[in-house]
Amino acid sequence: MEQNDTLVKQIDHLFNPHAVAVIGASNNLTNWGFGILNRLLNSSVQRRVYPVNTKLTDLRGMKVYASITEIPESVDFAVIAIPAAEVPQVMQECVQKGVKGALIISAGFAEVDEKGARLEEEVVRIARQGGIRFIGPNCMGHFNTSADLSTLAIIGQVRKGPISFISQSGTFGTHMIRNGLETGVGFTKFVGSGNEADLHLEDYLEYLAQDEETKVITAYIEGLREGKRFFQMAKGITRKKPIVVLKVGKTQSGEKAAHSHTAALAGSDTVFDSMCKQSGIIRVADDDELFDTTAALLHLPLPPGRGVGILTEGGGIGVLAADTCEEAGLKVAYISPDNIEKLNTILPSRWSHGNPVDTVAALFVTFPCLFTMIEDENIDSIMCISGVASVTNYAMMSTPPAWAKAMVDQFVAQHEEDEVKNLEKIFGLMRELQKPIVFSTLLTEAIKNSKAYKKLHENGMLMYPTPQRAAKVLANTAWYNNYLRSLSERGEKN
Amino acid sequence: MEQNDTLVKQIDHLFNPHAVAVIGASNNLTNWGFGILNRLLNSSVQRRVYPVNTKLTDLRGMKVYASITEIPESVDFAVIAIPAAEVPQVMQECVQKGVKGALIISAGFAEVDEKGARLEEEVVRIARQGGIRFIGPNCMGHFNTSADLSTLAIIGQVRKGPISFISQSGTFGTHMIRNGLETGVGFTKFVGSGNEADLHLEDYLEYLAQDEETKVITAYIEGLREGKRFFQMAKGITRKKPIVVLKVGKTQSGEKAAHSHTAALAGSDTVFDSMCKQSGIIRVADDDELFDTTAALLHLPLPPGRGVGILTEGGGIGVLAADTCEEAGLKVAYISPDNIEKLNTILPSRWSHGNPVDTVAALFVTFPCLFTMIEDENIDSIMCISGVASVTNYAMMSTPPAWAKAMVDQFVAQHEEDEVKNLEKIFGLMRELQKPIVFSTLLTEAIKNSKAYKKLHENGMLMYPTPQRAAKVLANTAWYNNYLRSLSERGEKN
Repeated sequence: MEQNDTLVKQIDHLFNPHAVAVIGASNNLTNWGFGILNRLLNSSVQRRVYPVNTKLTDLRGMKVYASITEIPESVDFAVIAIPAAEVPQVMQECVQKGVKGALIISAGFAEVDEKGARLEEEVVRIARQGGIRFIGPNCMGHFNTSADLSTLAIIGQVRKGPISFISQSGTFGTHMIRNGLETGVGFTKFVGSGNEADLHLEDYLEYLAQDEETKVITAYIEGLREGKRFFQMAKGITRKKPIVVLKVGKTQSGEKAAHSHTAALAGSDTVFDSMCKQSGIIRVADDDELFDTTAALLHLPLPPGRGVGILTEGGGIGVLAADTCEEAGLKVAYISPDNIEKLNTILPSRWSHGNPVDTVAALFVTFPCLFTMIEDENIDSIMCISGVASVTNYAMMSTPPAWAKAMVDQFVAQHEEDEVKNLEKIFGLMRELQKPIVFSTLLTEAIKNSKAYKKLHENGMLMYPTPQRAAKVLANTAWYNNYLRSLSERGEKN
Repeated sequence: MEQNDTLVKQIDHLFNPHAVAVIGASNNLTNWGFGILNRLLNSSVQRRVYPVNTKLTDLRGMKVYASITEIPESVDFAVIAIPAAEVPQVMQECVQKGVKGALIISAGFAEVDEKGARLEEEVVRIARQGGIRFIGPNCMGHFNTSADLSTLAIIGQVRKGPISFISQSGTFGTHMIRNGLETGVGFTKFVGSGNEADLHLEDYLEYLAQDEETKVITAYIEGLREGKRFFQMAKGITRKKPIVVLKVGKTQSGEKAAHSHTAALAGSDTVFDSMCKQSGIIRVADDDELFDTTAALLHLPLPPGRGVGILTEGGGIGVLAADTCEEAGLKVAYISPDNIEKLNTILPSRWSHGNPVDTVAALFVTFPCLFTMIEDENIDSIMCISGVASVTNYAMMSTPPAWAKAMVDQFVAQHEEDEVKNLEKIFGLMRELQKPIVFSTLLTEAIKNSKAYKKLHENGMLMYPTPQRAAKVLANTAWYNNYLRSLSERGEKN
């Protein structure tokens, strides 16, 4: 598919501007213009930033301009956070100033009523005539971590990494970024696309397709403006980098709410779903699954097939895991007799003798079991429930008596060292055999202090709080791998 | 339904013993007998506790008995944590000693093989002849917070409250209790029923039915031994107190795993499901839903109908919420024109003008909106997404510049005070109008430090991390209320 170089260059101005005007910069912390200005100033990159506000002359020592046209130097990017009615006039001034790109935070346009829609059309007309491309209106901001640029007023810290996220909702952006901060998975570019009066989700997708820093493209979708273009592009992109989407508005109530939110028209959900399958897009059902799947795509090998091995410290959770794997479309694998024999030498005689492998809470058996299971020809991926960091957790939860404390501490310290070494070994096996292991736990928050938990996070691996979340990750990545394989079998890959 | 007084008295010995022997008490912290002994000793109730171990004479200053028969005083309860093969002999000695109840931690019985099954039968035979009722084998322990009694080796702290939990898995017990600790929802009695060689889930259900401290009965089920008895009892109980169950082994793999875990035979899942509906049992799909629903039954009024009002700070999450409510069987309510007018006076003109009520991130509007929505005749329950504690969260996430810190802190402090007052008012309205409000958020962990979050927790109310979890709570409690109402309409209640 041919790339639109003009569009890519235009969007690149938005993510890599040289000089930024904040129109509506403010001293009042409940205004967007307060947070945005602070965010832009708080950058390691020496970038010119100009506050603009008709009612102020000085903002904490910085000169404030009454209009963007009064700024003496050139400006290529403007953030607009003022009442909707004033936006056409300000957009006109941006044109005058020679601005190339803008971002309109202001709400009160097509998402409200006919009058708002007309106002929005006027802004588009002015921008088009003046050669300005813009994000929004009615949006939450954007960022590019590689340029240390952010207009996201409400988030002060973003982890750098290879995910890009196009969101027709600001809230979901926030949530994804928080997950990243908490788990060590990071972002390169984000855009809250708002009403998409000018630039659409499809445009950002085209930009991110060619962006070398973006390894996985994720999107929150309420409705597509150019469905045909979207899926055609996606079909090309997913051969090289994965696309993961959360599309809401599935039900009648949801569709109605989406229309009121960003004036999006959702179209048939069934059609959307089948188009995703045909284009290699991984469609997820909620924000956790969006994040989990994306993190796995970045940090784990794709499962070669649907066979899953379940290793569990507790029988009950193993049963739930088997249910959820089967419900997610995975197959609880048959473990070969040779490996059952090997497991017999590792585990107490009362172990489950099959898959799920229930270690009946025996100590120090998790890793030997994993080393055996990952080699099994029927096992394409493993779900490991508890077993890792559990000793630390139990020690912290069991509040040993005073006389036993030193003994418990020493025991835990030795165990933690061993676990970290074993994790390194298992990471090696995962790479070598190209089979993923996902970890899940029902344990307490205390495990977050364990060395094993930290080691997993350093490697971009999560410890899912439910087997359902772990199962969906394995099912989604196995599906994607199968899609890619079916392309090469048909000679379509590349 | 007639109550079996003998059975109730027998089980009561297990939850309220006078003197306990720990057979297999240990100095080695990787043994169960280490944790159990510590747990029993660490009680505010003066209860006699005797360590028993054939290989020790002294355990940190306590006299250790080689056999329970050597203990000079009477013993009414024995915890047995020794290898399976030795259990028959020890059970014989318990009979000799006049013990009334026992709990067998030891595994290696019917869950393993035929030989284990025969060993288990022998233990049952000895206990029956000697008049001993027992929990287990292959179980994790039990507790009764009102007697400050616990045999749960791996958990040092349990919050007191009105929930009882019968679990055919130990892990789920741990998870429920952790949730309780973290959220302020507490337990009275717990039993990990293990292989149920003697006492069954059905027996514990009968006991908890008459237990006045138990306000909600919860259960994790792999398989029922006496299905007919279970549902007959349940039908009587659910008229007075709710029963919430998580039943696993839904799929073929899950059923197979359940059989290997506790030798349970699951039976048809469809039949189980329809029997739950007929008996007023709330069946949930996972451990989060089990806990969430239980907490709501304790602390919220039951929704009078299926109409839900959604109040949201973010449009996108509102769309997802509408989807999930409809998928959970709720109805996104039509808000009456009068109340739309009232909301017009509270919200910026660009608000969604319908349900979900999207406040378009306006400040200080959450509570006025809730006060209006809860009065609407079409609204039976409300899902409130973000809006509460969000100012605190954003202030913490936005890392204001140094010069603005004092201003932000003061702003947040005032806002937090107002929120707490408003929450008190809304709690009053909930009680008065008998309509529940559930809270959900996509915000960061930072909200846990806010006064509003703490206030919610003090009142047993959670802030769900996803609208899905909140929707299920409303759907389950609305269903239960409808079940109760259909009984009274048919004149069957009481």
